[in-house]
Amino acid sequence: MNIIVIHGPNLNLLGTREPDLYGSLTYDQLNEDIKQYGHQLNLTVMCHHYNSESDIINEIQQSPSSYSGIVINAAAYTHTSVAIRDAILSISIPVVEVHLSNIYKRESFRHHSMIADVCVGQISGFGKYSYFLALQAIKFGSVKK
Amino acid sequence: MNIIVIHGPNLNLLGTREPDLYGSLTYDQLNEDIKQYGHQLNLTVMCHHYNSESDIINEIQQSPSSYSGIVINAAAYTHTSVAIRDAILSISIPVVEVHLSNIYKRESFRHHSMIADVCVGQISGFGKYSYFLALQAIKFGSVKK
Amino acid sequence: MNIIVIHGPNLNLLGTREPDLYGSLTYDQLNEDIKQYGHQLNLTVMCHHYNSESDIINEIQQSPSSYSGIVINAAAYTHTSVAIRDAILSISIPVVEVHLSNIYKRESFRHHSMIADVCVGQISGFGKYSYFLALQAIKFGSVKK
Amino acid sequence: MNIIVIHGPNLNLLGTREPDLYGSLTYDQLNEDIKQYGHQLNLTVMCHHYNSESDIINEIQQSPSSYSGIVINAAAYTHTSVAIRDAILSISIPVVEVHLSNIYKRESFRHHSMIADVCVGQISGFGKYSYFLALQAIKFGSVKK
Amino acid sequence: MNIIVIHGPNLNLLGTREPDLYGSLTYDQLNEDIKQYGHQLNLTVMCHHYNSESDIINEIQQSPSSYSGIVINAAAYTHTSVAIRDAILSISIPVVEVHLSNIYKRESFRHHSMIADVCVGQISGFGKYSYFLALQAIKFGSVKK
Amino acid sequence: MNIIVIHGPNLNLLGTREPDLYGSLTYDQLNEDIKQYGHQLNLTVMCHHYNSESDIINEIQQSPSSYSGIVINAAAYTHTSVAIRDAILSISIPVVEVHLSNIYKRESFRHHSMIADVCVGQISGFGKYSYFLALQAIKFGSVKK
Amino acid sequence: MNIIVIHGPNLNLLGTREPDLYGSLTYDQLNEDIKQYGHQLNLTVMCHHYNSESDIINEIQQSPSSYSGIVINAAAYTHTSVAIRDAILSISIPVVEVHLSNIYKRESFRHHSMIADVCVGQISGFGKYSYFLALQAIKFGSVKK
Amino acid sequence: MNIIVIHGPNLNLLGTREPDLYGSLTYDQLNEDIKQYGHQLNLTVMCHHYNSESDIINEIQQSPSSYSGIVINAAAYTHTSVAIRDAILSISIPVVEVHLSNIYKRESFRHHSMIADVCVGQISGFGKYSYFLALQAIKFGSVKK
Amino acid sequence: MNIIVIHGPNLNLLGTREPDLYGSLTYDQLNEDIKQYGHQLNLTVMCHHYNSESDIINEIQQSPSSYSGIVINAAAYTHTSVAIRDAILSISIPVVEVHLSNIYKRESFRHHSMIADVCVGQISGFGKYSYFLALQAIKFGSVKK
Amino acid sequence: MNIIVIHGPNLNLLGTREPDLYGSLTYDQLNEDIKQYGHQLNLTVMCHHYNSESDIINEIQQSPSSYSGIVINAAAYTHTSVAIRDAILSISIPVVEVHLSNIYKRESFRHHSMIADVCVGQISGFGKYSYFLALQAIKFGSVKK
Amino acid sequence: MNIIVIHGPNLNLLGTREPDLYGSLTYDQLNEDIKQYGHQLNLTVMCHHYNSESDIINEIQQSPSSYSGIVINAAAYTHTSVAIRDAILSISIPVVEVHLSNIYKRESFRHHSMIADVCVGQISGFGKYSYFLALQAIKFGSVKK
Amino acid sequence: MNIIVIHGPNLNLLGTREPDLYGSLTYDQLNEDIKQYGHQLNLTVMCHHYNSESDIINEIQQSPSSYSGIVINAAAYTHTSVAIRDAILSISIPVVEVHLSNIYKRESFRHHSMIADVCVGQISGFGKYSYFLALQAIKFGSVKK
Repeated sequence: MNIIVIHGPNLNLLGTREPDLYGSLTYDQLNEDIKQYGHQLNLTVMCHHYNSESDIINEIQQSPSSYSGIVINAAAYTHTSVAIRDAILSISIPVVEVHLSNIYKRESFRHHSMIADVCVGQISGFGKYSYFLALQAIKFGSVKK
Repeated sequence: MNIIVIHGPNLNLLGTREPDLYGSLTYDQLNEDIKQYGHQLNLTVMCHHYNSESDIINEIQQSPSSYSGIVINAAAYTHTSVAIRDAILSISIPVVEVHLSNIYKRESFRHHSMIADVCVGQISGFGKYSYFLALQAIKFGSVKK
Repeated sequence: MNIIVIHGPNLNLLGTREPDLYGSLTYDQLNEDIKQYGHQLNLTVMCHHYNSESDIINEIQQSPSSYSGIVINAAAYTHTSVAIRDAILSISIPVVEVHLSNIYKRESFRHHSMIADVCVGQISGFGKYSYFLALQAIKFGSVKK
Repeated sequence: MNIIVIHGPNLNLLGTREPDLYGSLTYDQLNEDIKQYGHQLNLTVMCHHYNSESDIINEIQQSPSSYSGIVINAAAYTHTSVAIRDAILSISIPVVEVHLSNIYKRESFRHHSMIADVCVGQISGFGKYSYFLALQAIKFGSVKK
Repeated sequence: MNIIVIHGPNLNLLGTREPDLYGSLTYDQLNEDIKQYGHQLNLTVMCHHYNSESDIINEIQQSPSSYSGIVINAAAYTHTSVAIRDAILSISIPVVEVHLSNIYKRESFRHHSMIADVCVGQISGFGKYSYFLALQAIKFGSVKK
Repeated sequence: MNIIVIHGPNLNLLGTREPDLYGSLTYDQLNEDIKQYGHQLNLTVMCHHYNSESDIINEIQQSPSSYSGIVINAAAYTHTSVAIRDAILSISIPVVEVHLSNIYKRESFRHHSMIADVCVGQISGFGKYSYFLALQAIKFGSVKK
Repeated sequence: MNIIVIHGPNLNLLGTREPDLYGSLTYDQLNEDIKQYGHQLNLTVMCHHYNSESDIINEIQQSPSSYSGIVINAAAYTHTSVAIRDAILSISIPVVEVHLSNIYKRESFRHHSMIADVCVGQISGFGKYSYFLALQAIKFGSVKK
Repeated sequence: MNIIVIHGPNLNLLGTREPDLYGSLTYDQLNEDIKQYGHQLNLTVMCHHYNSESDIINEIQQSPSSYSGIVINAAAYTHTSVAIRDAILSISIPVVEVHLSNIYKRESFRHHSMIADVCVGQISGFGKYSYFLALQAIKFGSVKK
Repeated sequence: MNIIVIHGPNLNLLGTREPDLYGSLTYDQLNEDIKQYGHQLNLTVMCHHYNSESDIINEIQQSPSSYSGIVINAAAYTHTSVAIRDAILSISIPVVEVHLSNIYKRESFRHHSMIADVCVGQISGFGKYSYFLALQAIKFGSVKK
Repeated sequence: MNIIVIHGPNLNLLGTREPDLYGSLTYDQLNEDIKQYGHQLNLTVMCHHYNSESDIINEIQQSPSSYSGIVINAAAYTHTSVAIRDAILSISIPVVEVHLSNIYKRESFRHHSMIADVCVGQISGFGKYSYFLALQAIKFGSVKK
Repeated sequence: MNIIVIHGPNLNLLGTREPDLYGSLTYDQLNEDIKQYGHQLNLTVMCHHYNSESDIINEIQQSPSSYSGIVINAAAYTHTSVAIRDAILSISIPVVEVHLSNIYKRESFRHHSMIADVCVGQISGFGKYSYFLALQAIKFGSVKK
Repeated sequence: MNIIVIHGPNLNLLGTREPDLYGSLTYDQLNEDIKQYGHQLNLTVMCHHYNSESDIINEIQQSPSSYSGIVINAAAYTHTSVAIRDAILSISIPVVEVHLSNIYKRESFRHHSMIADVCVGQISGFGKYSYFLALQAIKFGSVKK
């Protein structure tokens, strides 16, 4: 079972970006850890980062041909992108929304997600474990379109 | 490690309550499954249901003496209770917020949680697996006050 | 045919509570009158008052085993309780919402009912006759889930 | 005792108009049923339908000379007409507001009534029985200016 | 110089309508007084009342052929009618908006006028004298399109 | 195939009304042009203008017996009339909403249409060609209830 | 009968201030004209201008000892001053609110007056004649506390 | 003169609850201090804490038979409870609202009190002295229904 | 210990201003009573009234050199003045906000205080005793910056 | 006469994307049909799809050198893109806004178009014919900057 | 070339007022530095501070006779004063708005400026250099009415 | 000292784009002037324009390795981009926000900047001099993270 993890804008700077908020784990190490945890669950996980909204849309559009599910941390685009919402609506495989930080503890414009109601579920606030839990959710078979 | 799961109002009717939304799993079976999954993680899990807001407050207030963490599905009180929020703020052990259904697919008054920003994180939309993931999150050690 | 009438918080003080608004009819006399009117319609009516939100939820949850319909004046909880709304959504028997006073003549926060759209209908402003009319509505057979 | 029932715009199409919402009872049959129920209560009931806001205003203005009370289903004008509100404010006989469907289950702009707080009370959601209950309310003597 | 005074819905009930608010002057006496005051100013004044929004529109549309100015108390339609606003925008003669009562002392929905910004000016709160002042304003030559 | 074009309030003044906004084409010439264009498409077109909301409702109610489709420019009533919305909801033939001017370039209260979501589609901003395009849309067969 | 006219901030610049909006009449000439018109009505009129909110409050507080009525153009303070509102509420003589320009044609923050509902009435949009009409209104005896 | 002090939810945790906000004074010591201060004023003071909204309602309903006044810190329920508001409205003895912390320095949902306008007055921000001042206010005789 | 009491606009009219709301106690008597009560507490109290916002700002700015604390009833400026808020923020001595009437029983624009969150606490609704209680609060030592 | 049709994000998935909403016509077939219809009107039509907001901006910026007009279905970017709005404002050729579905029947965030008021007109709800009608509108010569 | 710098309320306390926010530079030193920088640019700069709104209005009204431009830091009045806005609108010389702190990092009520759209431009967040930059902007000749 | 100037979408069209608003200075000339002014200040300035949001994010992310500060005119993205905000939050060098036009004179959606509170300061309304002033601000040393 193949799963794709999509990281949104500025997540490539993890480890140096706002360490008080996001911790010191680097982007590369995060992906390493995610893949390894997926391996434990017998899931093959690919991780991609894009600063570009359209790259994320393209990835989502193409994912059904290679993957059984998507784990997405759309970062800033979570709160603004109708286009990513529409891409998720357009495909047949399920999507899980994750966030490293607890978005409800932050600026009010981060409390609303444009994609929450078109994803299967949302996991927010557990750091790298948010991704682990999303993989686990898929493994449970609880994530269905 | 002892964990308490607190179920809010009307969750005792699971299995018969709005099955299109919540499925046919009964309340008793849900608790059975949660405890068993906890057992797999070496967590001892207690499950309590309360229709009463103050019973939930009392339970939260007393939990630090017996438990290391709380998993709470406050159900309807999620959206209205400042008092449960204050109880969570008053204690020293961490709390994870869970929801069976994806609250962002439902009536707009269910999109706002009065407790989200005082919990460690939120897991919403994975049915009974929302609880499993919360236990897993605690097991990971990612859930800290 | 058995019907239960549920009175919400502070209705037990009828007769002494804000008499300019609610009149001098006492709570006990109100119940007497409701039961007698029910009797005329061949309805057996039970009346209960609760100041507690959870007591109302418990009563609603248990009512399907003993009653064919509910007449509810949720009083203050009308405007704040998602939990009572969920209880009504959880059961199989129909519910009629009543109010003694015309809630649209009062403070703006009383204009919105959290339960109106999950009840069969709403009757507001006719004093004790609001309850009579609810019974009559049930008798007509117009009150179906 | 003479009562006038005023039907607002598009109610003449009952039976063919949105039958999923309003049922198959025709406008003529509705009036027949209302009058007959009034007869049982010793009330002489006249029924008029107007698509025109000003016709409704004219009718309300003239009604005190012939009738002791008004039952009004202002339909669409319920939500928009300050002028009908002012007509009701201008007369000496009491008015009961009725709705066939439960307006709180419909579009949000139908949740607000421009006339609710100048009528004696509101009955909503019981189909043709909403009118019956209004007549009954008048018969009870509970409907006073 | 010919002037038309247009009275909106329910103003025909003056003298009996809400006397605490509008006083005991009857509609006929009001018109008598307005015409007489116009006579003092060498203005020939016609007064018309309409409960119908479209009658008011028709009157406004036709007024330029017979009159040099309009004094309008659109009553309830003041607050809701885009169509009367458009009629005023469509003609070449100036319009003065008047109100008997001070609309800013009343319900909040009466604080907004849909026509205020397309009239020359607004006079509110002086009883029958609001009309007199409007005629005086026209006489001054201060009322120009 | 017979089509009815319904013009709302103040459109009869076209040619003289706000020529900067609406141009110098007269109402009569507009109808001439619409009919002629319909003729090119093998559509028989009738054009009616009403300043009265209820006349428009009556026309909509009666149209299914004579016409296969409605093209409506409800003008000012576009933004205020729940009653016209309900009339459209009540009939079986499709309706196309048109506007001469681009309503999104005008006052903010003109940006919202009470009928847009109950019509097949909306065409706004092309002057008389808005009507032509509506006829063309019907001719394409793209306009279905 | 003595009347005081109070001019608010920046009105002293009339004649040079935004002449497109306010015209070329100077502040001194305005007062000259007001006094002369008052003279025609047998009213003795004093005119004062203040840029200071507290000077206006002081003037209002002292006016009952010397004047029978106040005509106030509070200019910018119309929209912001609770303190001037309270001063008007504190005195026993009536106040008429005037505006040179039609405030409803201007920025939206000028549509709301903090003093409108504590004045007898409002006259807006007639240039210097707004003041004349206010004097006339007082002369009519229509201006009573 | 007997006075009852009612403490709302979570106040029993004082001393351990959010000490940065509420200080280290324990709940028991608070009551001790309140009673002793009451003693200085010749007031007999009873203190009760309830986590339950309905217990507070019950207490308020029964208080007139034993007490001359109520000092209430409704804590979280201050911001959400229409039912406590209605209880206060239902009784004949006066109520003073107090808060330990300055509620206007905290989350915006704590700025609104559902009971402020049905109490005699509000005292907020003086720690335990808020209660002392409430007792003093009652002693002054300034607290009347 | 020297304390300054600052009275805002229109409070000098106490005794004659809206006696239904504020009572018959005159401004001079109020100050007499405040000073005497201060004397009982061994506080030397100075009282100043200003209709001018800037006079209040000046007084606040200079107060630290002569006083240990401020009691302020900013009256109308409570609801509008950012500048007084900034003055309070700029000084080193603590400020207590008082109101004679219960501001939460009045117009909605009086429910919000621009200074509440920069004062130590707020006392509202106890008439002259609001000032007494503020002095008592300072005496308790509970009022610290 | 050359015209460019710009398709926004996710429109490339037509035929598979939400077929209940968008039908089974594929993206390629849509373009084929548009070009062919353009051919009938003697218009040479180019069709381009972009998931990227900046690609659409680039296309709009360059279009004046090759085309006489633009037909744009900005899809999701309709509701969020100030940058596309600015691009339209920056060029000299006219733009027609089209939508396949009736955007007013969908989620409320789709009711607002960031570009509607800078386009000539809007056509919404006619499926592929929305594009045909836009071409026809251009052909009529009704589409001018 | 003469320039006037106008400092609004509480800026005289610079150096002691909220030093975390505003730094330790005193008001006198600020003016010294501004004048010296002006000197470098061959601008003669006068600096005035006023706590009074009307003093600022008076200064603005008189400035055209002595100065070629105004640099204003209206401080708290920035967010509340329509009267200062009107004064700026009333004069012929250009005005530059400056702020020491970045007003967009502060309380939300400081994000809106009542004068921003009637000034040439706004400079916010550079401490004393905000004033220097405003002078430089005037020197560039970029500041024109 | 190296500084990068980042120009957002559509700024490349300067000189032809909306010349009434932006003037006739071309994009190339603007950059020429900015660099030359930087040269006068001993700053080496690079200028880049991007229509793409992600290109801007990439540039911001990479800038700390080559530059000491950023001057950004994010144009349309100013009002919509959380992602650019997050990029600015992610880096260690300071950013100054500039705008050619006074954004507070334009459409209301341009009044809010998503990046203002994460930049050091904002300069708006001085045409090309806005950039000059930003460079000057950096030169002053007033621009610090």
